[in-house]
Amino acid sequence: MLAAAAVIGLFWPSAPARAEEGMWTFETFPLARVNAAYGLRLDQAWLDRVRGAAVRLNGCSGSILSPEGLVLTNAHCVAPCLQDLTERRQADMETGFAAAARDEERTCPGQTADVLVDVQDVTDRMTAAAADQDGATLLQVLYRTEEAIKQEACGGDARFTCQVVDFHHGGRYALYKYRTYRDVRLVFTPEPSVSSFGGDPDNFNFPRYSLDFAFLRLYDDDRPAATPQNLRWSSAAPREGEPTFVAGNPAMTLRQLTSAQLLRQRDQGLPILVGQLAELRGRLLQYSETGSRQAEAAATALAGVENSYKVVNGQLSALLDDDLIQAKRAEEDELRQAAAADPALVDMMDDRRGDPWTVIARAQTAARDLYPTFRQLEAAAGSGSGLYSYARVIVRVSQERAKPPEERRPGYSDAYFAAVARKLAIDKPIQSDLERLNLTFWLQKTRELLTVDDPNVRALLGDESPEALAERLVKGTRLDDPDMRVAMLAMTPDELAATGDPMIAFVMANDMAAQLARTEWELAVEAPVTRAQEQIARARFAVYGDEVAPDATFTLRLSYGKVAGWTQGRRTVEPFTRVAGLYDRATDAAPFRLPESWVEARETMNPQTPFAYVTTNDIAGGNSGSPVLNARGEVIGTAFDGNIHAIAGTFAYDERLNRTVALSTTVMTEALRDVYHQTHLLKELGQR
Amino acid sequence: MLAAAAVIGLFWPSAPARAEEGMWTFETFPLARVNAAYGLRLDQAWLDRVRGAAVRLNGCSGSILSPEGLVLTNAHCVAPCLQDLTERRQADMETGFAAAARDEERTCPGQTADVLVDVQDVTDRMTAAAADQDGATLLQVLYRTEEAIKQEACGGDARFTCQVVDFHHGGRYALYKYRTYRDVRLVFTPEPSVSSFGGDPDNFNFPRYSLDFAFLRLYDDDRPAATPQNLRWSSAAPREGEPTFVAGNPAMTLRQLTSAQLLRQRDQGLPILVGQLAELRGRLLQYSETGSRQAEAAATALAGVENSYKVVNGQLSALLDDDLIQAKRAEEDELRQAAAADPALVDMMDDRRGDPWTVIARAQTAARDLYPTFRQLEAAAGSGSGLYSYARVIVRVSQERAKPPEERRPGYSDAYFAAVARKLAIDKPIQSDLERLNLTFWLQKTRELLTVDDPNVRALLGDESPEALAERLVKGTRLDDPDMRVAMLAMTPDELAATGDPMIAFVMANDMAAQLARTEWELAVEAPVTRAQEQIARARFAVYGDEVAPDATFTLRLSYGKVAGWTQGRRTVEPFTRVAGLYDRATDAAPFRLPESWVEARETMNPQTPFAYVTTNDIAGGNSGSPVLNARGEVIGTAFDGNIHAIAGTFAYDERLNRTVALSTTVMTEALRDVYHQTHLLKELGQR
Repeated sequence: MLAAAAVIGLFWPSAPARAEEGMWTFETFPLARVNAAYGLRLDQAWLDRVRGAAVRLNGCSGSILSPEGLVLTNAHCVAPCLQDLTERRQADMETGFAAAARDEERTCPGQTADVLVDVQDVTDRMTAAAADQDGATLLQVLYRTEEAIKQEACGGDARFTCQVVDFHHGGRYALYKYRTYRDVRLVFTPEPSVSSFGGDPDNFNFPRYSLDFAFLRLYDDDRPAATPQNLRWSSAAPREGEPTFVAGNPAMTLRQLTSAQLLRQRDQGLPILVGQLAELRGRLLQYSETGSRQAEAAATALAGVENSYKVVNGQLSALLDDDLIQAKRAEEDELRQAAAADPALVDMMDDRRGDPWTVIARAQTAARDLYPTFRQLEAAAGSGSGLYSYARVIVRVSQERAKPPEERRPGYSDAYFAAVARKLAIDKPIQSDLERLNLTFWLQKTRELLTVDDPNVRALLGDESPEALAERLVKGTRLDDPDMRVAMLAMTPDELAATGDPMIAFVMANDMAAQLARTEWELAVEAPVTRAQEQIARARFAVYGDEVAPDATFTLRLSYGKVAGWTQGRRTVEPFTRVAGLYDRATDAAPFRLPESWVEARETMNPQTPFAYVTTNDIAGGNSGSPVLNARGEVIGTAFDGNIHAIAGTFAYDERLNRTVALSTTVMTEALRDVYHQTHLLKELGQR
Repeated sequence: MLAAAAVIGLFWPSAPARAEEGMWTFETFPLARVNAAYGLRLDQAWLDRVRGAAVRLNGCSGSILSPEGLVLTNAHCVAPCLQDLTERRQADMETGFAAAARDEERTCPGQTADVLVDVQDVTDRMTAAAADQDGATLLQVLYRTEEAIKQEACGGDARFTCQVVDFHHGGRYALYKYRTYRDVRLVFTPEPSVSSFGGDPDNFNFPRYSLDFAFLRLYDDDRPAATPQNLRWSSAAPREGEPTFVAGNPAMTLRQLTSAQLLRQRDQGLPILVGQLAELRGRLLQYSETGSRQAEAAATALAGVENSYKVVNGQLSALLDDDLIQAKRAEEDELRQAAAADPALVDMMDDRRGDPWTVIARAQTAARDLYPTFRQLEAAAGSGSGLYSYARVIVRVSQERAKPPEERRPGYSDAYFAAVARKLAIDKPIQSDLERLNLTFWLQKTRELLTVDDPNVRALLGDESPEALAERLVKGTRLDDPDMRVAMLAMTPDELAATGDPMIAFVMANDMAAQLARTEWELAVEAPVTRAQEQIARARFAVYGDEVAPDATFTLRLSYGKVAGWTQGRRTVEPFTRVAGLYDRATDAAPFRLPESWVEARETMNPQTPFAYVTTNDIAGGNSGSPVLNARGEVIGTAFDGNIHAIAGTFAYDERLNRTVALSTTVMTEALRDVYHQTHLLKELGQR
């Protein structure tokens, strides 16, 4: 599945993509090229209509399908909500959720939805501010300029969110202004047994039969939001070869990393991730098998870990392909030579620090030394423990708030403090068993990676074992209470220390080391890489022009493609699956057991109805829930996965193999009518 | 730790090692070179004395230290025995084991001990038989010739074991004849909390404080075996720089693989192993945390998996070092060119199949396709489930025994049938929880790696989930009863089918596919590689002479080196740890919690006593328990681990970093005297 959570742990920014592929911004979509290639007449109005109905969700995407805020997305994007509602006895994870009327729609804790309403180019202002800056100052200046731009555009208006998006790693900056909905309610999601039919075994595979769709609704002042910009639902399936468009928020691609960056990922970053995710997965699976309560509690975490594991495993495989590395080296050499031959670029490229590729390579050497400590103490600290995260954010906010604004670390703005306060107040259930499991795992891995004799490990553990320490922290903390969290967030560091809360005390005792690890990483890795990537981006623009799509940034993009299967070796995969295949694949055992509703509907459903299909659209994690559109701009599916080759798309798009997997609106329509009897929903979608 | 179990899953044979390193056979030990380098006067009598007292154990090594069969080895080598005896209430895993008198020594189920008594060169006979053979016939001919040689030398005499050892991958063959002891009893092993002090976090690390030694005794006709060949115990610790010798059975090195073989390991074999071992480790850890009974039951399996995980992780890191790959390529190119320039070699090297490097590279392409199926259905089938292994060996023996001897598959000799009968009769306790865990894991991974649509996966699972199938098989089988196993072993295939045992039925239903996967692998990978490696070995002998140590084969080797720390980057590691360090490192939490005996003895123990030390000896998994000898041939320690750099020794030995980790006889002597009060043992060792 392609939720953005799939890409945890990889935090390299990257450089623009090549012309034949691309997740395009709406501002730079190559209309003329696409119209010519597919014989279409798309225009700016088409783009505007789609943009106005595209939605960014937590790690996912979606689209508005009615004037009353109805949003289509994937079931796996609302799985955390379904789990939270189940724990509050407002839903049931076994049976899914279907609101019979508006007043039965239930708010998803912490769910937000962003609709892009304005875009402004701020490149000149950002590059002017960054000119001649270096190291820590460079990162500070970029941050402060961003904050100023956002403050001017959004002020303190909670209905809007502002973001300065860095495209091409310093090549272009834009201010994105979103209308943000903070009350998003669950309308409909099928039984998880059918929405994630095939489970992990089928994830990133095709043929595919998971009914991975759901509906949310945007609310405003406790009423359904008015959304005059919305898309039309078509229940007609596309034909093989028909052009398709996917509008959504791909989170991250790394197609323009230098070879030195790719090799560090291959040799260090990804192997560590693969090993840790596999072990955590084993723990979660074993825990889930101890009972149905445990299985339910761990479901969301397990799905996330299994998905991430497949992703990082596929990424490592991609980078172990020496042909890919050679191709990247060749691209790099070509650009280096072209830049060296251009007199206008020579000064910019070879300043006192050395050329940017050398600077990045040197930073990778530093990264190899610093990464284990940076990762374990800071980037992956707590390893998914919510209580630890609460404690850390409370401690840091308390410390930064005590400083004059101009001395605060980047990111600690008043807007951030307000956002944290909102988040801590959300009453999300805490799973104590999982908290212990995650903390134990994190502490064990930290000791393993840094070794027993490392002073940071000694400071973290003292005389305790990872298991005993995790137990003590989880048992003693009061951070499971939202009121207590909010109260603590308002405290000074001294007041926090006086609470005697063990999790707070643990974070306070170790946070200096964690912040030091971050600072070292920023100075030795992030700052030089940021600057060097900007130089490379400028050289690439100068040499190749700007007709390239930027790497993904979890902002709105549009990709074009067509419905098509693929051939690999002796295996040819047809582009469509049909309802008959779902029933053929069903067994008595999860994750291939159908819910009663589908067993009962077997005679009613048309076995020939297209279920899922694959397209050549270039998408990435974060695109989950994106509408798939036909040339008329009608929604004909929702993208919910890539095929296994799409994982390599992090580094390179291969049109022969890389596929988007979509659920057809045809099967959604039939399911709503014949399985779930959701007449009011069909009516809202303009269907009988 | 360096038990041979550490290298599961890697089954590539390899080519000879370089002159400056080496695990030498006693027949080819470079006496003159070593005497010159260290200023010594070792002679053949010295070698004979050591050889006669060296012992090969199950996956480990040891040495005879008294005329009455007393054997020194590592505590981790007897951990499975301690666990088995605990389950029979003859010992206690918490407190270790100390027999107060001979009649309290307890037989370790399934433990054997081999002492090498004769070596004969059989190269001419083997190469003559293999001449002009190819493919499946080549493997058959080599096997039948080996069987004939073994039969002539050992006959049916159960007191002896014969083995034809292939050195240099076809360069030299030798018949090794061992005196085999089948009644090996536990004499002494410390509390596991101190023998594996530091546990997994300290494994393959140094400084080190695990008291990893134990004593076994060889029995003959229910009496202690007479062992006139034995080594002298010295309680004096070596000095820094003093020469040291390690005699033991390293299981496997891969130093002469071609670059194509190394890259397949890097790209496919090792990543699959790393992922699977990490996940299995997570499962075992989580299971262990559910209770002390569970922790005890899983202890041996967990230690094995954690050790293997560190090994394969380290091996993958070694192969991700492009410098190592480049060095291997350069060696390969040099030999190829030298061979091509030698008119005497041209015909041998470039026969109708192409040159051997090309043949091996082609076989790797085949291996990439075949490996997932071969691994999951055959090589790693059952993933550690004892019940599955019993069923498979029973089914296969039954099928092969029904054929005329000349039509049986390689390996299915009368001697093998007898060995199987002995093994199945051993009453080893079955852990049902772990059986289910392992089978579930194996079935899940098979479905994941081969995908849901694979016909073999469909055949294995039918309509069941991995969990439900594993549960049904473990619950229904009667293979936990040794009498039933022995009875089944005597049955015909029809009789077996009629038992209705679900595990037997499951294996019978799927074994054809597994055997097919093996046959495909043998034909497409093993046979061509075997032949090509023999060609390369002959070329290497012709070009460089035979002054090289062969790759490890789990047969007796002698390595030389000296006591020395190492420096890596800014970190210098001293060669010795001392008793004071053990007490400094102790905490209240496992694996750093000392047993009561050591807490009580604190005032008695000399804090300056050398505990462990590191040497430059080149060793590998299987060397665990090997005696460390001084130049006088006295035992001054037992090798129990390598440092983290020793893992890369699978592919290349680096004298600057690669270290053996040994426990000093000084601390063993003091512990026996002051902590454990084993006066009779000290007396048998010639100590007061």
